[in-house]
Amino acid sequence: MNDFNKTKEFTDRYILLSHGDGGIKTGELINKLIIKHFGNKILNSLEDSAVFNNFSHNKIAYTTDSFVVKPIFFPGGDIGKLSICGTINDLACAGAAPIALSMGLILEEGFEISHLEKILKSAADVLKEAGAFIVTGDTKVVEKNCMDKIFINTSGIGCISENVNISPENIKPGDKVLINGSIAEHGLAVLSSRPEFNFKTNILSDCAPLYSLVRDMLNSAGKIHALRDATRGGIATILNEMSDISKTRIDIYEDMLPVKKETRGLCEFLGLDPLYIANEGKIVVFADPSDADKILSAMKKNKYGAQSCIIGEVSENSEKSMVVYNTKIGTRRIIDRFYSEQLPRIC
Amino acid sequence: MNDFNKTKEFTDRYILLSHGDGGIKTGELINKLIIKHFGNKILNSLEDSAVFNNFSHNKIAYTTDSFVVKPIFFPGGDIGKLSICGTINDLACAGAAPIALSMGLILEEGFEISHLEKILKSAADVLKEAGAFIVTGDTKVVEKNCMDKIFINTSGIGCISENVNISPENIKPGDKVLINGSIAEHGLAVLSSRPEFNFKTNILSDCAPLYSLVRDMLNSAGKIHALRDATRGGIATILNEMSDISKTRIDIYEDMLPVKKETRGLCEFLGLDPLYIANEGKIVVFADPSDADKILSAMKKNKYGAQSCIIGEVSENSEKSMVVYNTKIGTRRIIDRFYSEQLPRIC
Repeated sequence: MNDFNKTKEFTDRYILLSHGDGGIKTGELINKLIIKHFGNKILNSLEDSAVFNNFSHNKIAYTTDSFVVKPIFFPGGDIGKLSICGTINDLACAGAAPIALSMGLILEEGFEISHLEKILKSAADVLKEAGAFIVTGDTKVVEKNCMDKIFINTSGIGCISENVNISPENIKPGDKVLINGSIAEHGLAVLSSRPEFNFKTNILSDCAPLYSLVRDMLNSAGKIHALRDATRGGIATILNEMSDISKTRIDIYEDMLPVKKETRGLCEFLGLDPLYIANEGKIVVFADPSDADKILSAMKKNKYGAQSCIIGEVSENSEKSMVVYNTKIGTRRIIDRFYSEQLPRIC
Repeated sequence: MNDFNKTKEFTDRYILLSHGDGGIKTGELINKLIIKHFGNKILNSLEDSAVFNNFSHNKIAYTTDSFVVKPIFFPGGDIGKLSICGTINDLACAGAAPIALSMGLILEEGFEISHLEKILKSAADVLKEAGAFIVTGDTKVVEKNCMDKIFINTSGIGCISENVNISPENIKPGDKVLINGSIAEHGLAVLSSRPEFNFKTNILSDCAPLYSLVRDMLNSAGKIHALRDATRGGIATILNEMSDISKTRIDIYEDMLPVKKETRGLCEFLGLDPLYIANEGKIVVFADPSDADKILSAMKKNKYGAQSCIIGEVSENSEKSMVVYNTKIGTRRIIDRFYSEQLPRIC
């Protein structure tokens, strides 16, 4: 890229190796883009470590996720929005309110700065909605052709209220299984925006920050045993994980599980199973049966839960993990973990 | 890679896309490698968020760093050791003891699992030495040729004791500037291990976890005003940052600054300035002048501080950041921030 480096137009438009070296250009990038979109008192100090007052809660939740989604812009979102939602949702599934997030950017030399700004803006918008903050960050740049555009790592710290105890170990036979809406949309939205897939669809990613939904459920005073967001591997994978940890059999019913008509059609056409396709705004809830209606009604009032419903129940203890899918025509099949990915780089 | 996928030998030796999809192969990787090397009660629960009891300290430090060093193995360390040291040192520079770390792995399809294990083992060794733990993690795999082998993000949470108040804003005229040993070795060690550089050297990376050194300094009861590890951009860059924030002029003396003979020779040969070359085990200390000797003596007793010395002082208030290098022959030059990197992908 040496030929281009000489023109000011180029250095203003594209990421250079020097944007990641900790020197003057890194400082410019931080001031012009990072502080502009994420600025807050702690971040602005630009220390290598953010320092802030400890909070009064007894329990901390802590999570990390790297995002390598391809393409970086897709219907319903982009890698920036995704990186914030993913981390907020992991915290939310522990019943934690997001307190502070970190963002580590790895950029390819030559990446368009306007694309970076679009990504940071959509991350900032969703942060604002969720009432969360980026307090520390890092930027690295890798030579052209040594990576694919942009990878983002976000980690996050959340605080858990005294009376909250959410863990798959709490799952018991009799528990109702709920979800906050229709499945498989994120994976299909990403897939449909890849150039090698030559079809049109109106399906949008469901990518959304779900802490407000979890907060409303917790405030409903209904007893939530466990929560899990159904990302990579879809609801099939997380139901298996929950069955595994709690040593229970889980039954899911086809006629209760919300799958949009368009999703179902596309999956049939492509030979994909919606149960295994990634979501980025769907949370599976395990609730005490006596409280399921109370929780469901709280979920329905939240904008990310309007289509919430019960999709099954925990039927019995089972030494071996077992997830059973009950079809409309009355047959049953075991939903196993998948052996190999249907769609790589979905998040 | 479809041809190879069929052989068991291949799937046991190399990273596959399915190692990053959250399914069976991801589970195998986590159990065989991650838990084996990093296992602890919190991590082993394999929840998306680690949940642990809040600590009693009033202040939290929080940091993140991505590591893209090339090559991933270099004299004196590798990307695994580096990723832990970098994060522990960022926390240490806020005066924080490391409590919990996260690790996000991004792996290239086809990466050798034996190399990954070597990297995780060296990360685990340095974690153990530092008394720190990985409590949450994430693994993604990107298609072959879409990235360069392995990138690691580590974030970390630390706790800061009541009486500790370390910040560049505390720097005052009169402060002594100390360092825990000779500079520029990490950058040269990495450079010397790149195939395009055709020379031999015995220089090893100084990569080391420095919290024990900081703890010993804090216990010496000497008043530390500020700490900064001199990584990307070398001591020149961090001295400029400190000068900037504290609005002071800093004077450094060539005859006090430790640079090994071999380092100096190689820098002259390559036309590089050791002041701008990255370190990964060097910390610059700003100390109240009345306490400098006490702190220096505590540093010298630690294994990472045996060669500690005073290298300069904060000479006066200055609206514009100013770092002055006083040479042996009595001349002075301004050490500016660098405009563009000397060595990309050094960490």
